[in-house]
Amino acid sequence: MSNKVQPRTLSGFMELLPARQAQFDRMVATLRETYALYGFTGLDTPLIESSEVLLAKGGGETEKQIYRFMKGDSDLSLRFDLTVPLAKYVVLNYGQLTFPFRRFQIGKVYRGERAQRGRFREFYQADIDVIGDGKLDISNEAEIPSIIYRAFTALGLKRFQIRVNNRKILNGFYAMLGLTEKSGDIMRTVDKLDKIGAEKVASLLMEPEIGLTREQADEILKFIAITGSNSQVLEALEGYWGRSEVFDTGLDELKTVVGYLSAFGVPETHFAVDLTIARGLDYYTGTVYETTMLDHPEIGSICSGGRYDNLAEYYTDRQLPGVGISIGLTRLFFVLEDQGYLNDSLNTAPADALVLPMTDDLSHAIALATTLREAGIRTQIHAEQKKFKQKLSYADKLAIPYAIFLGEDEISQGVCAVKDLRSGEQVKLAPADAAAHIRAGLEQLSQGKPILDQGE
Amino acid sequence: MSNKVQPRTLSGFMELLPARQAQFDRMVATLRETYALYGFTGLDTPLIESSEVLLAKGGGETEKQIYRFMKGDSDLSLRFDLTVPLAKYVVLNYGQLTFPFRRFQIGKVYRGERAQRGRFREFYQADIDVIGDGKLDISNEAEIPSIIYRAFTALGLKRFQIRVNNRKILNGFYAMLGLTEKSGDIMRTVDKLDKIGAEKVASLLMEPEIGLTREQADEILKFIAITGSNSQVLEALEGYWGRSEVFDTGLDELKTVVGYLSAFGVPETHFAVDLTIARGLDYYTGTVYETTMLDHPEIGSICSGGRYDNLAEYYTDRQLPGVGISIGLTRLFFVLEDQGYLNDSLNTAPADALVLPMTDDLSHAIALATTLREAGIRTQIHAEQKKFKQKLSYADKLAIPYAIFLGEDEISQGVCAVKDLRSGEQVKLAPADAAAHIRAGLEQLSQGKPILDQGE
Repeated sequence: MSNKVQPRTLSGFMELLPARQAQFDRMVATLRETYALYGFTGLDTPLIESSEVLLAKGGGETEKQIYRFMKGDSDLSLRFDLTVPLAKYVVLNYGQLTFPFRRFQIGKVYRGERAQRGRFREFYQADIDVIGDGKLDISNEAEIPSIIYRAFTALGLKRFQIRVNNRKILNGFYAMLGLTEKSGDIMRTVDKLDKIGAEKVASLLMEPEIGLTREQADEILKFIAITGSNSQVLEALEGYWGRSEVFDTGLDELKTVVGYLSAFGVPETHFAVDLTIARGLDYYTGTVYETTMLDHPEIGSICSGGRYDNLAEYYTDRQLPGVGISIGLTRLFFVLEDQGYLNDSLNTAPADALVLPMTDDLSHAIALATTLREAGIRTQIHAEQKKFKQKLSYADKLAIPYAIFLGEDEISQGVCAVKDLRSGEQVKLAPADAAAHIRAGLEQLSQGKPILDQGE
Repeated sequence: MSNKVQPRTLSGFMELLPARQAQFDRMVATLRETYALYGFTGLDTPLIESSEVLLAKGGGETEKQIYRFMKGDSDLSLRFDLTVPLAKYVVLNYGQLTFPFRRFQIGKVYRGERAQRGRFREFYQADIDVIGDGKLDISNEAEIPSIIYRAFTALGLKRFQIRVNNRKILNGFYAMLGLTEKSGDIMRTVDKLDKIGAEKVASLLMEPEIGLTREQADEILKFIAITGSNSQVLEALEGYWGRSEVFDTGLDELKTVVGYLSAFGVPETHFAVDLTIARGLDYYTGTVYETTMLDHPEIGSICSGGRYDNLAEYYTDRQLPGVGISIGLTRLFFVLEDQGYLNDSLNTAPADALVLPMTDDLSHAIALATTLREAGIRTQIHAEQKKFKQKLSYADKLAIPYAIFLGEDEISQGVCAVKDLRSGEQVKLAPADAAAHIRAGLEQLSQGKPILDQGE
């Protein structure tokens, strides 16, 4: 009618239908469980922070994307990542935390990006970080990607690769060439390698703005062309040994990380030393990670992070080094759905069993539902005044696996009629037996993983 | 130093230390699990909505509390409850939903309340609603409070009572007295009964603004003085039968709800017909609920809701009746902590076991940790270069229940030394046996419920 408001959900905000939401929630549960297995504690920080605190680091590209507003006299902003709130939390609660502090956080963040398909303004990040007090052992830099390996594997993803590099190797290499001050520009240019090719990269490097010589450009191309198995790459890097202390430290670290990654059970197929990985931010100082879906390199990294020396330098002089990684979960879910990776054979029904009372008095149906629920079976009672066929169609639409009929006959016999709605098979059982029967059937239905990756 | 920003968390925003957060998360998990057992599907709607959509219902007391702001040309607001987003969702996705639609949502909402102790500007609500398409069976009005009974019981709360009334009984009663138009004012006044007493309520009712006669005021006092067991109250209400159709319908409904509540297994100690419960909002049209902690009536209702006829009248002409209830989880958690109700004997450590490698090479420690994790034991490796005593103190501070020592001797013997940090008992075991040993110990630690209610 004329005076009704047309309901809508803002563009760039993911809102899922129930079955999809169940799939998303199962992914979140898998990540929580995996992160917890590695001894990470879950945090939940506010969505809103004081702008002064949230933007202490200042500007950069994200600043204009931030949701910032006044409420009364308060200048507030919505968090745009989970790292700044972590820095705030650690400094604020320093005296009450125990280090190394291992935390995970899975929560929504906000960026007012230009609306386009697959871009979200509200999206989940799923982060893990280990924060040291003053120092932090290198083994953490191997454990973090091993957690990601386990997490993606638990989700059902198969054809992915975690790519590892070390910023000290890059920084040391540029120092050898006397190009330390230009290293930022160089890395940003090298980052375009996949898109524009080696020769175009060389041309850009020799343009006046960066101003490398042909020899310098060639050295860089030669360096980033080092590929092969992890041991081949490490061996090639040995050739640069002894020319830069920073480089040598980086190479030592990389060798240690690669060695431990194997000990953590990550197969060589799933991690690769890749010298083109730099991660744009100056923030990172050691190992850096990106993760690629091998069959969909075009979507870019689905999980990135690295080692940093100062989590919270804008809040404190205390040195808080750390290593962390983040999954952009909303975008990943969008891509998985878009590319047909979601496992639709998993049980996404809101209930495992639907009790259909065939009598006016519902007391027996209620008692039966209570028995089933106490046995852990998610149960609904369909008590509406509807035709039998409509009630069955309700179960069908929601893909509820079992319907249970309870009429005068069943009540007097102390049984109920349990129908498997996939096979059509129907059996009369006492309530406790019905519960056991349904549980056995449900086990089959919950075998699968959230992602169905056809790759071998 | 001078150019550092002082980190802080906004007042009115709950941010918990890790062990407390683990307790909060366990409560959320218990609620999710309970809601799911009753066949509710979990939704997750955006925190931000278009102001036009969110405020379609318009004003009221909450409007000035709303976080509303512009982003570019968009007039946006943060959600202030989970009901309006549900109404939006149901109308928007009407064609793809199956009714009755049972959903739960546990999420943060925002209200810029005056900051004071125990008041939150960001807080969790944990809602369940059943929405019908055109109609909805009365049995849902009994099932909803039975879910709340089960949820609070699963959380460990004992001394609470769900109070039930029916708006039709109240409306019918006021109609009998010819006071329909004044019923809103009367109910608001009667609501003060607990605070100011019966005689003060009568005086207020007789003041010119409401303007009742002494006889009318007495009739009302007599009515709300009806107390006793549920059957006594219902019997007293029978005395009013036949004078108002609305009243009679309400009484029928109330009798049905009370009967089914017993069938749903809610003991009489935990629910009471209470004629003073009205719920302020015009929104409610049938059964209404409030829930009181019997030992802390001063904190008011910890869980409220009721039956409504039109979920979404601001968006659609379609009639969408429903019944729902909401737990104000953040405030409840605050009260439980404040009143010493949180069960601190539950395992809130970030890990179940801490592996302490006594060799430089961590490979064996990593392999051991992997074995434990595969057995479901949440495991950390303490790989930092620290003194042994400091490492044990780390486990101690975090209340990690088991430490596992792995030195050259253990490695050569294929065992590890597992120490129960509570009893001090230490045993040398092969990794798989260590996992079994720890799992058995953990079972004891996870027996308890999140809330420790000393009441009988």
